[in-house]
Amino acid sequence: MSSTTSNRRTLRQQAMQNIHQIAPHQFTGSHRVYLDAGEDIQVPCRAVTLTDALKSQIFLYDCSGAFGDPAQQVNVRRGLPTLRQTWLDARQDTTPTQRQFSPDDIELEQWPTEFSSDCRRALPGKTVTQLHYARAGIITAEMKFIACRENMAIDNLASQQDERLQPQQSGRSFGAHIPKHINAEFVRAEVAAGRAIIPLNINHPEAEPMIIGRNFLVKVNANIGNSSVSSSIEEEVEKLIWSTRWGADTVMDLSTGRRIHQTREWIIRNSPVPIGTVPIYQCLEKVGGKVDALSWELFLETLQEQAEQGVDYFTIHAGVLWEFLPLTAKRLTGIVSRGGAIMAQWCQTKQQQNFIYQHFREICALCAQYDISLSLGDGLRPGSIADANDEAQFAELRTLGELTKIAWEYDVQVMIEGPGHVPLQLIEANMTEQLKHCHEAPFYTLGPLTTDIAPGYDHITSGIGAALIGWFGCAMLCYVTPKEHLGLPDKEDVKQGLITYKIAAHAADLAKGHPAAQLRDNALSAARYDFRWQDQFNLALDPDTARAYYQQSAPAGQADEHAEFCSMCGPKFCSMKLNQQLRDLAVPVDAVRPHTLVANSNASTNNADATALAKELV
Amino acid sequence: MSSTTSNRRTLRQQAMQNIHQIAPHQFTGSHRVYLDAGEDIQVPCRAVTLTDALKSQIFLYDCSGAFGDPAQQVNVRRGLPTLRQTWLDARQDTTPTQRQFSPDDIELEQWPTEFSSDCRRALPGKTVTQLHYARAGIITAEMKFIACRENMAIDNLASQQDERLQPQQSGRSFGAHIPKHINAEFVRAEVAAGRAIIPLNINHPEAEPMIIGRNFLVKVNANIGNSSVSSSIEEEVEKLIWSTRWGADTVMDLSTGRRIHQTREWIIRNSPVPIGTVPIYQCLEKVGGKVDALSWELFLETLQEQAEQGVDYFTIHAGVLWEFLPLTAKRLTGIVSRGGAIMAQWCQTKQQQNFIYQHFREICALCAQYDISLSLGDGLRPGSIADANDEAQFAELRTLGELTKIAWEYDVQVMIEGPGHVPLQLIEANMTEQLKHCHEAPFYTLGPLTTDIAPGYDHITSGIGAALIGWFGCAMLCYVTPKEHLGLPDKEDVKQGLITYKIAAHAADLAKGHPAAQLRDNALSAARYDFRWQDQFNLALDPDTARAYYQQSAPAGQADEHAEFCSMCGPKFCSMKLNQQLRDLAVPVDAVRPHTLVANSNASTNNADATALAKELV
Repeated sequence: MSSTTSNRRTLRQQAMQNIHQIAPHQFTGSHRVYLDAGEDIQVPCRAVTLTDALKSQIFLYDCSGAFGDPAQQVNVRRGLPTLRQTWLDARQDTTPTQRQFSPDDIELEQWPTEFSSDCRRALPGKTVTQLHYARAGIITAEMKFIACRENMAIDNLASQQDERLQPQQSGRSFGAHIPKHINAEFVRAEVAAGRAIIPLNINHPEAEPMIIGRNFLVKVNANIGNSSVSSSIEEEVEKLIWSTRWGADTVMDLSTGRRIHQTREWIIRNSPVPIGTVPIYQCLEKVGGKVDALSWELFLETLQEQAEQGVDYFTIHAGVLWEFLPLTAKRLTGIVSRGGAIMAQWCQTKQQQNFIYQHFREICALCAQYDISLSLGDGLRPGSIADANDEAQFAELRTLGELTKIAWEYDVQVMIEGPGHVPLQLIEANMTEQLKHCHEAPFYTLGPLTTDIAPGYDHITSGIGAALIGWFGCAMLCYVTPKEHLGLPDKEDVKQGLITYKIAAHAADLAKGHPAAQLRDNALSAARYDFRWQDQFNLALDPDTARAYYQQSAPAGQADEHAEFCSMCGPKFCSMKLNQQLRDLAVPVDAVRPHTLVANSNASTNNADATALAKELV
Repeated sequence: MSSTTSNRRTLRQQAMQNIHQIAPHQFTGSHRVYLDAGEDIQVPCRAVTLTDALKSQIFLYDCSGAFGDPAQQVNVRRGLPTLRQTWLDARQDTTPTQRQFSPDDIELEQWPTEFSSDCRRALPGKTVTQLHYARAGIITAEMKFIACRENMAIDNLASQQDERLQPQQSGRSFGAHIPKHINAEFVRAEVAAGRAIIPLNINHPEAEPMIIGRNFLVKVNANIGNSSVSSSIEEEVEKLIWSTRWGADTVMDLSTGRRIHQTREWIIRNSPVPIGTVPIYQCLEKVGGKVDALSWELFLETLQEQAEQGVDYFTIHAGVLWEFLPLTAKRLTGIVSRGGAIMAQWCQTKQQQNFIYQHFREICALCAQYDISLSLGDGLRPGSIADANDEAQFAELRTLGELTKIAWEYDVQVMIEGPGHVPLQLIEANMTEQLKHCHEAPFYTLGPLTTDIAPGYDHITSGIGAALIGWFGCAMLCYVTPKEHLGLPDKEDVKQGLITYKIAAHAADLAKGHPAAQLRDNALSAARYDFRWQDQFNLALDPDTARAYYQQSAPAGQADEHAEFCSMCGPKFCSMKLNQQLRDLAVPVDAVRPHTLVANSNASTNNADATALAKELV
């Protein structure tokens, strides 16, 4: 055994060890609570009990599923409990069946599991998508779950008990219409209109329902997955659990290396959030990387294989049309989407139209049987500031709009992927063009990166663009990690990417005026003003880091939770403390004298005089 | 000696050791070049020679002064060379004199220096500000230096040699008017109009001229300075040099602990960038932290002391009027500016109007003698999303506008400080109100933070707001570090804050359409497309991190600079590589067939049929 193989094995064992360590996990000062959505529907959330006199509870949206519940024990070799099993059974429109596709790898004894080899499929003639139910006027359990989940913060008792927590600011919504209180009928109506999607494959009953649409909270996606030169199954499962801890609303498994099927199986069985994939990646692995060996038959077979496993949404590059390729010829960075580049090369090599486009209706028919949502990939997205908003990009976008209408004919849920690299002044046009050409189907963008000059910090270059496009109406933001353009992200990169994107999403929610958004800001700021340090940490997006930074820089003996200052300013210069002293002093408003513009009267306006005056002063 | 004292001494020795290590410093792949601005004016920049066939040089704005020039040796106990000495002498409007104020601390033998105890003062009746010269139609050497510096990228030979480097995107300027080529007369005119300032005390001849105004590159300020519970002189000098390496255009010394005078002396003597302070901090130290012991006389004396040392701009909280205090009573987080809170408490305790406001003209007269710019502090800025854009904030802003006009009577340069915590949708109003009420004097904002929920990541919450307000016209962005609200930043925090803000500033420059901005993005993206990894790293805002991330995640043996992929995607899935193969294949545009909407024709629109079709496929 080479030392490299030995190292890899150690890494994998380490990762498996870590999975056991992080499941279950609860942040210090938080505890798992389930909100009752009626009809035995329990919605998980992270609750923080404040330490002020009111002892209010603040409920926070929680993506971590059973991994965030100390009362549950998860065996990652068996997978998560199947939350949606009874809902799916009750609908009586699906049937259990043996899977047709099994693992593609013989090394599986290294990863023994107790996963089922069955799957579920729609009964003949049945469409089982949430869009289908929504159009039929049916409010599903998934929709009820989602309504409760989206309202979490509004339903907080805290907001009624402490008037400081009420939102003060109104938003600017750019055409979004977010009701004061979201109910299940609103969820249904938005799905029916195609303005929102609920990506939930019937073969992923472990997933907790969530919604992607611009009249809901802005969501965040994290990409994980191995590449041929890095990482193992255990590491990817660990990244999955880690991602949901830090707030990933969906996770894309972008594996391109060996054991793709098995890696995905582990991910889906253990994922409390919807899983997306880019099926063409697996196809290319199957043909040893030879683009011209790709075919529609292989693609369809791969979709079927992933459908049985439970993939919740497929990114397919159906809009990379053969005739658009010359539009990229003058670009600075050509085609930067992996899927886009693969399909472009196929079209050009074969001198044929993109087979994903040609067979789009067949794909829709398949998706309708499993409720797989389509994420129409932007294979021609710009990869540099220079290429932003060009004709290649917008030609593809218009095509995606045509395909959206076709998917809707099949009751298949659709979202549209967007760029990429876009300078600030061109971001709004991306959103307005998308709304116009794609009939308000949800937009799902990568960033966009607002400059190209900071490799190593592209979570930040893109977090700026993400906040902006989220405000303008983008429904889900695909994170970018610090390693973008440089290498495969590790756990710490995943966390940095996610925290940055949760910031962007929340800043966008605030800016749109989402009624549930400002409560958390207010609760945290009130804690800050009151020197309730622990509350401030507990309410933070990353309680661990906030707590560690405070303790690390506080001098010995002063890092206690009652200190009325921190090391940034020290005790004499803490404005919060000074201000509290001021309030203690406060005189009534009418005792204050009126503004007297004294500054205008005690010196002349002549420079020479002024200088003379200054001389006297000196 | 206690172990704490011993630890502190070790820390200080470590810091001094670090100063020697980082001076001089040159990034791998970069070299110092001086651009000729005529009349023996040499403007430093960081040059990167590309490795492509053209071997073009890219010139990058460089704030690191002599510390970035391997040909220079800097002794930090003696300070930097006095670049502006001859220019100041040539004007014959100043005179050397003994300083009136000496260090306030007896421990100085620990920090022996060779700094001069002389200073320079305007001759009687003379005003020595850049605004004064500008209004008189005089183009100073400083203005010529600045014109060359601002044009750096435009003058790049590279942009003429390689058409890929030419900017493609036009900006949206929100009323800014940036010429294609900046010349010294334009600099003069902008200063004369009050739209830009050149903060350069005649007692800081070590500083390299720079300009702050919305028709120039957006600038970034870094705050350093000790607090009573943390850090030493050596550590602060180290942070200063470190800050300029990462692009700080100005540095504020916000020291509040002991040895304020001496810390500042070391900082100014070693600073290639303008230094700002908040003089009220030192005043408060002088009176042992007792706010009611503050007085105008003490304040004036402190201004004089700092003027002699060479402070380039003063932040003074002249707009915190007594009568505005009741406006803060209903706020969630009251007054969060340290200076604002101090002045508010003083007004309320003494039942008197703010003495900085009362004596504003005397302050202007003093500043006119040294060319100290005024940065009118926003003492009532909002400290939480809840308090953004309230009447307290805007009442103060209008007062700052009145004071701006008074300062201009004295030919004193002025900029206006801004918030704070502001959600995305309220940022633009901050800029438009500032332009309206403050007569286009440059705006200088802290962030703004776009949400309160991410302590530990406020460089990012605020970097988003900074990019936006920079685009809207803010001239300088005061950085925020990850430790904001939690503790005093260390070196790594300073770097993180700076890189984030350089990203924000550059994203804003791109968005405004600054003609010099896009070249660097294009050069970096061209390098990325060509797999010129070293060029990509060398052009990055942080070459060290980009290089380290690439090498760290590349598998053994593949981390070479010619690899046509990275570990993110591996060799088969590199879109850049695929795309290059595509271009090799490329057929002429007219060989491509027209768009045929095949997707519309090969399946019916009926769901039942679609399902049947899918069944066949399965």
